[in-house]
Amino acid sequence: MSKRKRSSEHLKLRHVAVDTYHENVAYLNSECAIYRAEGFQALSKIEISVNNHNVLAVLNVVHDPKIVEPGELGLADQAFEQLGVEEGSPVRIEHAERPRSMDAVRRKIAGDRLSPEDFQDITRDIVENRYSKMEMAAFLVAAHQGGLDRDEVLYYTQAMADSGQRLDWHESLVADKHCIGGIPGNRTSMLVVPIVAAHGMLIPKTSSRAITSPAGTADTMEVLAEVNLQPKKLHDVVRKERGCLAWGGTANLAPLDDILIAVERPLGIDAMGQMVASILSKKLAAGSTHLLIDIPVGQTAKIRRMHEALQLRKLFEYVGDRLGVHLEVVITDGRQPVGRGIGPVLEARDVMQVLQIDPEAPSDLRQKALRLAGRVLEFDPDIRGGSGFAIARDILDSGRALAKMNAIIQAQGEISERPQPGELTFEVAAVRDGFVISINNLLMNRVASLAGAPMDKGAGVDLLKKIGDEVSKGESLYRIHAQFKADFLFACGLAERDSGYQIGDEKHIQIPLVDS
Amino acid sequence: MSKRKRSSEHLKLRHVAVDTYHENVAYLNSECAIYRAEGFQALSKIEISVNNHNVLAVLNVVHDPKIVEPGELGLADQAFEQLGVEEGSPVRIEHAERPRSMDAVRRKIAGDRLSPEDFQDITRDIVENRYSKMEMAAFLVAAHQGGLDRDEVLYYTQAMADSGQRLDWHESLVADKHCIGGIPGNRTSMLVVPIVAAHGMLIPKTSSRAITSPAGTADTMEVLAEVNLQPKKLHDVVRKERGCLAWGGTANLAPLDDILIAVERPLGIDAMGQMVASILSKKLAAGSTHLLIDIPVGQTAKIRRMHEALQLRKLFEYVGDRLGVHLEVVITDGRQPVGRGIGPVLEARDVMQVLQIDPEAPSDLRQKALRLAGRVLEFDPDIRGGSGFAIARDILDSGRALAKMNAIIQAQGEISERPQPGELTFEVAAVRDGFVISINNLLMNRVASLAGAPMDKGAGVDLLKKIGDEVSKGESLYRIHAQFKADFLFACGLAERDSGYQIGDEKHIQIPLVDS
Repeated sequence: MSKRKRSSEHLKLRHVAVDTYHENVAYLNSECAIYRAEGFQALSKIEISVNNHNVLAVLNVVHDPKIVEPGELGLADQAFEQLGVEEGSPVRIEHAERPRSMDAVRRKIAGDRLSPEDFQDITRDIVENRYSKMEMAAFLVAAHQGGLDRDEVLYYTQAMADSGQRLDWHESLVADKHCIGGIPGNRTSMLVVPIVAAHGMLIPKTSSRAITSPAGTADTMEVLAEVNLQPKKLHDVVRKERGCLAWGGTANLAPLDDILIAVERPLGIDAMGQMVASILSKKLAAGSTHLLIDIPVGQTAKIRRMHEALQLRKLFEYVGDRLGVHLEVVITDGRQPVGRGIGPVLEARDVMQVLQIDPEAPSDLRQKALRLAGRVLEFDPDIRGGSGFAIARDILDSGRALAKMNAIIQAQGEISERPQPGELTFEVAAVRDGFVISINNLLMNRVASLAGAPMDKGAGVDLLKKIGDEVSKGESLYRIHAQFKADFLFACGLAERDSGYQIGDEKHIQIPLVDS
Repeated sequence: MSKRKRSSEHLKLRHVAVDTYHENVAYLNSECAIYRAEGFQALSKIEISVNNHNVLAVLNVVHDPKIVEPGELGLADQAFEQLGVEEGSPVRIEHAERPRSMDAVRRKIAGDRLSPEDFQDITRDIVENRYSKMEMAAFLVAAHQGGLDRDEVLYYTQAMADSGQRLDWHESLVADKHCIGGIPGNRTSMLVVPIVAAHGMLIPKTSSRAITSPAGTADTMEVLAEVNLQPKKLHDVVRKERGCLAWGGTANLAPLDDILIAVERPLGIDAMGQMVASILSKKLAAGSTHLLIDIPVGQTAKIRRMHEALQLRKLFEYVGDRLGVHLEVVITDGRQPVGRGIGPVLEARDVMQVLQIDPEAPSDLRQKALRLAGRVLEFDPDIRGGSGFAIARDILDSGRALAKMNAIIQAQGEISERPQPGELTFEVAAVRDGFVISINNLLMNRVASLAGAPMDKGAGVDLLKKIGDEVSKGESLYRIHAQFKADFLFACGLAERDSGYQIGDEKHIQIPLVDS
């Protein structure tokens, strides 16, 4: 019987400059003399330790010493940053145990109901990058398919909100509005915030950047002003102007959602429970006390039928009430894009036209923004129910909303040279005479994304016709803008295969499921 | 309106020598001037084309030109091999559409029943490496949680069998046996094959290698003989000896299973439908007409309760009957490992002791092998029901099974220098006086795996005590063998935390759920 002692053999840490997109990945040379690379591989994950710190990572075996030499351990960007020590540092590795919370995921797969602690554990493990993407996929599918009951959604929301920072504005009415997404060009926040802030109500709006959609509020605002505000700056802007339009990323609010999206989007799954927990946890973490939720309904919207919209509304209300948020839901017309532009520059143009009372301003964007702003204003106990719309219109038409927007832009930091629409353009034409009877939101999003939005601010789509418009064969329906040749060709190629527009008889014009 | 034309810009192909373990991965430099790397990333997958051939791959963005330069496209091992062109070749990339069969997966998530065509599509897409690991995880969890009804399992089995090659032996009785796995040391195939072949019945056994268990039949047979047989060689051996013990990998039978295992194991999910489809599709592809399935039941076996074993038996019977396979199921005692050795060398030693009628031979392995061989022999219409066991025992005790095994070893190619048990050893001792009341199969598998089995043939565990044995405090329960220091320490570390043995009173000795 031989004696055994603790191994004193370490690997030398190396940074492998690869962005593995929300997954920790480690690289070990197949000729490593200390650890048997293949022995780790089938179990998929290893635990890397240095001092008292450790991270989990999926293992890839490398055969090329230019990437990782035998005796080295390579870590891709995210894992390297998380470990937080310098290249060349000695590290040890071990077979990783499955993250403990995967037991809860397996119970969910088996059909169990999860407890508040289960959601806390799962959330913490994912935020600490202990899950591989396949484990995240397992959790998302299990929660989607088995369904989360409304109390589970509540626990999940709470766990997500607890997983990051929280903002506290020290006021009793902190307003916010949020749309569940899916409708191109729907940039009402950039109108609601200046209107509401001009009234004096606090509305510190933090938004996400688009991931696979062609523009988020943060991307669009960035055409006009700085949006990456450090916490102190954010507070200064809000204190001075009563509102802001900033990117929420720097504030680290409910970070779980930003990670899961890397799995949700490629899988194309979007469950109600996940949606409610994602949105409300962000708002809870952002310190909102009063919240207006916009649920657009339409054949190519996220929510396609009225009964689903009502179901979603009830779930928002149930969870919101129990979190102590004053929450209201409006169901809106989601048949087609809002406004004309799709993509940051084009959407910012629409917003500024509305604020400037430009006769060219898209009236649907104006109407929707006034309606939402009116509802937010009615959170103010001094405003009589039903009078919010008229007050919002007064603020907009008097130029006070524009003045407030300009003040917010100045406070956040104005962009000196505003980007322009992309110079590569292509117009998609009607194939027959008739009326525009429907526009496919999903397809318009996809064309604008392929064109390069939101990374190229000027890329996107400019709609020249909307539902109900009469068109002649050969007349332009919309214009694609791009800056990058490869992107331009991808976007034009898709539009050529499917324009996203249906042209037909007047009597077939799609009617809205709700008043627009 | 600008003119557009097809892009003639290509990337230069580069092989990035990384084994990404059953996932196609591509690498693009963030400074690439032709394609915008980040634009592809969120959607996760790209399609790489050259001539009329294309592959899908998950994209990683690289910041280091030593890995991939701007203007190059890197492909990891599997994707590079699949594309099948030389480094430096010009390739194009495009945004990949989600594999079409993911629609079926999303329907399964939503609770739908899938059609034979759905399973064919899913199987083909996965075998062609069109799924990312998270997509495979989504499919597995959806199929597991929502459940597959028995007709879906039948469709799935058929689709899996169709996904690879098929063997045809041109005989009316082609026997096989298969255990669902999970029990360490359970190497009965290496006894059943020589017994049955010595009788003259055709039994061309192809087995898998262990993935996360410490030894498969192919790994253990490889201690004695070549197992990587090319199709012609395989047929020659079988025609000459009426049996073989070869690795099934070279024959490319139902390859889907070998891919999915890269996701199933790390997730730790193992559904009945998946198990039945995996096993029967392999057997169908291997040309078996008569099949004996071994389902061990025990507290730490894959199947833990008798009613589950019966449920699984019915599912095997339902699918087997509809595939035209003569199928029988035996439910066996799965309380503890079979024989003494765990790991290729130690298990091969047990098998040879039984064949050599060595008085040291583990009697449980002998008994179980005779029982199974007897049942297989009864597939022969000339053998009276119930007399198989005695015939098997005659064949074994007369030395005819040993002679047949040696002939098979010669035919496949004998290993001249048989590997020996690992030289690093550690004995795990009883912490108290008493009786061995239970042994944890899962833990013994894990200790032997950590020790380096099956890669190090001599690594593993040698059991010195079994359930029911009396032990004194300090007496050795089992011996760990390893060849590699790091592995040795991992295995000893685990055994120190949990030996896997429960020592207690005689009256608490675990009793078998079925006759052993």
